[in-house]
Amino acid sequence: MTEIAPGAWAAALTPLNEDLSIDHGAYGAHVSWLLANGCAGVAALGTTGEANSFSVRERLELIDKLGKAGHASERILVGVGCCAAPDTIELTRASLAAGFNNVMMLPPFYYKGVSEEGIFRAYARVIEAVNDPRLNVIIYDIPPMTGLTISVALLRRLRDAFPDVVIGVKNSSGDFSAMEAALAELPGFKVFAGTEQFLLATLRKGGPGCISATANVTSRSLAEVYANWQGDTADALQEVATRNRLALQKYPPIPGLKEIMAAARKRPEWKRLRPPLVNLAPADAEVLLATVSELGLQLD
Amino acid sequence: MTEIAPGAWAAALTPLNEDLSIDHGAYGAHVSWLLANGCAGVAALGTTGEANSFSVRERLELIDKLGKAGHASERILVGVGCCAAPDTIELTRASLAAGFNNVMMLPPFYYKGVSEEGIFRAYARVIEAVNDPRLNVIIYDIPPMTGLTISVALLRRLRDAFPDVVIGVKNSSGDFSAMEAALAELPGFKVFAGTEQFLLATLRKGGPGCISATANVTSRSLAEVYANWQGDTADALQEVATRNRLALQKYPPIPGLKEIMAAARKRPEWKRLRPPLVNLAPADAEVLLATVSELGLQLD
Repeated sequence: MTEIAPGAWAAALTPLNEDLSIDHGAYGAHVSWLLANGCAGVAALGTTGEANSFSVRERLELIDKLGKAGHASERILVGVGCCAAPDTIELTRASLAAGFNNVMMLPPFYYKGVSEEGIFRAYARVIEAVNDPRLNVIIYDIPPMTGLTISVALLRRLRDAFPDVVIGVKNSSGDFSAMEAALAELPGFKVFAGTEQFLLATLRKGGPGCISATANVTSRSLAEVYANWQGDTADALQEVATRNRLALQKYPPIPGLKEIMAAARKRPEWKRLRPPLVNLAPADAEVLLATVSELGLQLD
Repeated sequence: MTEIAPGAWAAALTPLNEDLSIDHGAYGAHVSWLLANGCAGVAALGTTGEANSFSVRERLELIDKLGKAGHASERILVGVGCCAAPDTIELTRASLAAGFNNVMMLPPFYYKGVSEEGIFRAYARVIEAVNDPRLNVIIYDIPPMTGLTISVALLRRLRDAFPDVVIGVKNSSGDFSAMEAALAELPGFKVFAGTEQFLLATLRKGGPGCISATANVTSRSLAEVYANWQGDTADALQEVATRNRLALQKYPPIPGLKEIMAAARKRPEWKRLRPPLVNLAPADAEVLLATVSELGLQLD
């Protein structure tokens, strides 16, 4: 069974063709670039990757092509969580078939106010249907998008029910106390912070790292934090990472990051988004790119 | 072009087989029963119908089978809105192919905090891709589930851009002032209330009626409100409808309504739900069924 690589992960952006289909060539190049430039690993088809704006068929094609790129499986995490269990099951099976045994799984996110029992059953149904001993699930807890809360008690219940499968959580609540609680109460459970702002703090509490949107453009500096996290320079390096993050997160993340990639690669096509996301206003884009320059982010 | 029937509509429940696939036989029977027992029409594959818990393939099969049942197209509304535009487009085309030109369309609902421009473009992209003069779209505005707000300004923009296509809205905000504003500011726009509590009020303001979850079990009484809404008994009939609604909505709607159907049809299979929804606790179910009995709801 493949372990999942510790460190700073990027939730990869998904570049698009003119008709808003996935530009698989640019995507493959971006994933390879991230892996070669500081990312411990790449989470494909997450929130930053606009996963839910693609049909299952489009996602299957991306997974298949990514599987053929020959990346080490401990460095890839595939987002598979949909509202409909059959879709989540199909994407999870496809990830395994492509050689990726680490998946990141949203709870079904249409209904709000559902019970912990209901969320547990939704996960259990998928895991039991896939029924593959290779499978590693990272629970994807992102309350700002799902409107749901995944408590430590629920994580414990899932881990206890599927100890070899449910290996961790990506906590994108933005609330470090929630990550701390999971780290303290579930020793060995892989609690990834959803932002590099908490990278060092997570590592010091025994966590494996972070999975972040902004790591698409800050991965080199995050690699330094991870490489030196037990050394004297750790706090100073984290300060740089935090400064970058706080500067970048003033903008809607996906449009802002695509703007930065378009400028860095001199490819305006990089800016394309699927609705309901829209590009930054030109004036905002200009200020953002000036900020990137001031921060000294190197994206060559 | 088929008009959409005015009156009280039910957002049909979807009965399930033991493996939680759709029980098409029971579904077809339920739709026919609703249409024969007071419903002006039936909205298939809405929130109450657990639409987003089914894959596109499962929904296509339901639409296809429903098309073969021979219902008048002005009495059927098909829920087609998904997070991914290609899915919404595919379901909309399938509805038209099945003979149903009235569809109810959620906005893409994964991302929160998106702009009005982004929601507009998401709808425009689907309508332009389907590009069928027969199409009638009812915008499905259900903030408690989507976390999004569809303003009157956005409805106006959509109607103005697609005057022959975007014909109305189902407002499930629970806030009558929002429905009133749409009715006042968009004359002729078909504003359906998402609850029968506002059926009479909506009709008096020029709206066509309501589309409601609880209409699965209250349709006969709602038909009386609609039949007599301009008469002397209107307020008294609405009071009954409101009393029923307020009593029923104390329970989670889908589990509660399936509980009532199971008892009425003497088929415990009716209670099945897809996770993350879960059944009522037995004690709650008992109180609910006693309430149904007190209210005198007739479901034969």
